[in-house]
Amino acid sequence: MKKKNITIYDIAKVANVSPTTVSRVLTGNPLVKESTRKRVLEKMEELEFTPNEAARSLTKKQTNMIGFILPDITNPFFSQTYIGVERKAFEQGYTILLRNSMNSREMESAHLREFVERRVECIVFMGGRINKSEPTEEEIVEMKEVMKRVPLIMVNGQMEGVDCHTIRTDEEEGMRSIIHHLVSLGHKDISLIGGEEGVSTADIKAKAFQEELENNNLEFHNEWQIYSGFGIDDGRVAMKRLLTNKKLPTAIVGINDMVIYGALKECREHKVSIDHFSFVGYDDIFPSDIVHPSLTTVNHNYEVLTSEIIEVIKKIIEKKDTEKEILIDTKLIIRESSFENNQGK
Amino acid sequence: MKKKNITIYDIAKVANVSPTTVSRVLTGNPLVKESTRKRVLEKMEELEFTPNEAARSLTKKQTNMIGFILPDITNPFFSQTYIGVERKAFEQGYTILLRNSMNSREMESAHLREFVERRVECIVFMGGRINKSEPTEEEIVEMKEVMKRVPLIMVNGQMEGVDCHTIRTDEEEGMRSIIHHLVSLGHKDISLIGGEEGVSTADIKAKAFQEELENNNLEFHNEWQIYSGFGIDDGRVAMKRLLTNKKLPTAIVGINDMVIYGALKECREHKVSIDHFSFVGYDDIFPSDIVHPSLTTVNHNYEVLTSEIIEVIKKIIEKKDTEKEILIDTKLIIRESSFENNQGK
Repeated sequence: MKKKNITIYDIAKVANVSPTTVSRVLTGNPLVKESTRKRVLEKMEELEFTPNEAARSLTKKQTNMIGFILPDITNPFFSQTYIGVERKAFEQGYTILLRNSMNSREMESAHLREFVERRVECIVFMGGRINKSEPTEEEIVEMKEVMKRVPLIMVNGQMEGVDCHTIRTDEEEGMRSIIHHLVSLGHKDISLIGGEEGVSTADIKAKAFQEELENNNLEFHNEWQIYSGFGIDDGRVAMKRLLTNKKLPTAIVGINDMVIYGALKECREHKVSIDHFSFVGYDDIFPSDIVHPSLTTVNHNYEVLTSEIIEVIKKIIEKKDTEKEILIDTKLIIRESSFENNQGK
Repeated sequence: MKKKNITIYDIAKVANVSPTTVSRVLTGNPLVKESTRKRVLEKMEELEFTPNEAARSLTKKQTNMIGFILPDITNPFFSQTYIGVERKAFEQGYTILLRNSMNSREMESAHLREFVERRVECIVFMGGRINKSEPTEEEIVEMKEVMKRVPLIMVNGQMEGVDCHTIRTDEEEGMRSIIHHLVSLGHKDISLIGGEEGVSTADIKAKAFQEELENNNLEFHNEWQIYSGFGIDDGRVAMKRLLTNKKLPTAIVGINDMVIYGALKECREHKVSIDHFSFVGYDDIFPSDIVHPSLTTVNHNYEVLTSEIIEVIKKIIEKKDTEKEILIDTKLIIRESSFENNQGK
């Protein structure tokens, strides 16, 4: 007697749940209530249901865990990215393991080892070594070793010779859009503060900054480009140094929003009128809408960015083809801090 | 022939590593490099080392995973707490599973189920149901069920009838310190904005607020206490409503820093001079030092708070006695936004 081929739709019907719920039980998704899970499993037994190979591999072999390494979750750029990925991963029944590296190579290594041991399905990596223009040989070798066992997704970073998935927001184009905006407001004297040479997010922005000044026949002043780091205090340091110049710019661009917060603070503490300068940041983290003046800045398109990350994760787990490199458009958010240049010329 | 009792110190010596490293190998701590781990394990075999029962139980039965549920990691109050715990947990060789609940009961339940399934050693819980003055019966029962299988630590919250570990910063005393500060500056007309009735962090602060006004013979104005929520936009709503009063306060206290950011924004957009009011927030999240004016606020003593959380976790895992209730002092951070009342009287 040939038995009817039982599907998850049959199980759903007799268990009085949706097919999605049956599928969730099969994949061990924690969204399913214990009582529901039990009922669905009972019905599967009653109907002698055997999940097909794909479903079985989901139940048996997969951990559905995803490792996520980022430098520091207290920086809203990272928390705004992480939360979108966590939320979407949860809907798919994936579990995220978050690890903060504090940009330390040792911490990164330790987290990578842990992820491999815990057999995560893939690793999402942000900051640290993948943001170095010249990572060490050791760092590269370690990444290649990891990749032999676990697929890797680099977000806003890359590593020469490490052929993994990359998802980047277009930082070059983002910086160009800032210069266009300032030029349209009549600014000719523009400064760039913050960042660190050799860190790709700074190198990409600095290069685009210089090129775009040239495209607009504006002079690049070496003494107005001040590397100092990525934090609020680093912004203060840069602003302090900038103010020692005899001739000052009319517009100040930050490598990120944080350094501009520091620059504003430094101006206030030294009674330098902030009305003398247009300020533009980068990242559009949430405080940029509440500082005064509210900050013009570049938004990473967080919704699209996090959706793309999850799509790539899904395709990796389901072993489907996916593009190796994804580039996401940014958008300029114009607020109070950038205004018409009123200093003549 | 009686063999010498081999200890981890002997292993450390022959493997040329510290005893801590040997112990880390035993507990599966990811801090240990693969090559080191291998060497230590080889030496253990050579010397026929048998770890004692405690060490064996560490290697065999424990997952060393800790579940951490909080409402929303993009709120710096939570990320500043979380990062401290993650860093300290890492040093101890524990692994944290972070889950955002977005204050949803269903998400909380799903995360609790997942944690039990993954056999975490204990669960740290913040926000949501443990902040309700009256949680539902279902929520209480679920917590009790979880507690039968996994120890629970509630941070800045509690639940009647659920006898778990609680660690709280002293929100009552924190609010009292705000009133003392404002009274010492000559303020008599003080408003409280934000929060939600029935959410314990708001209820505790509102009660202390009213009592402390009374202790200082100050009038409590019902129309100056405005519940509106906990976000930036909720602060705008509250400020808007407060400004419709004929008589206005000279000082405005926020249920947290976020609502004050909203209040400042609302004032600016409606050209209400912020110099008319002293503002005080609560939480001391990082933007409070960069908004203008910089915000006087209550700091939760994050370093102590996160140390206490890790201490309790350690004691739970090592099955040692620990205090059931821990209360942590807060500290008032005085910045620009609170100043002498200069409106007569």
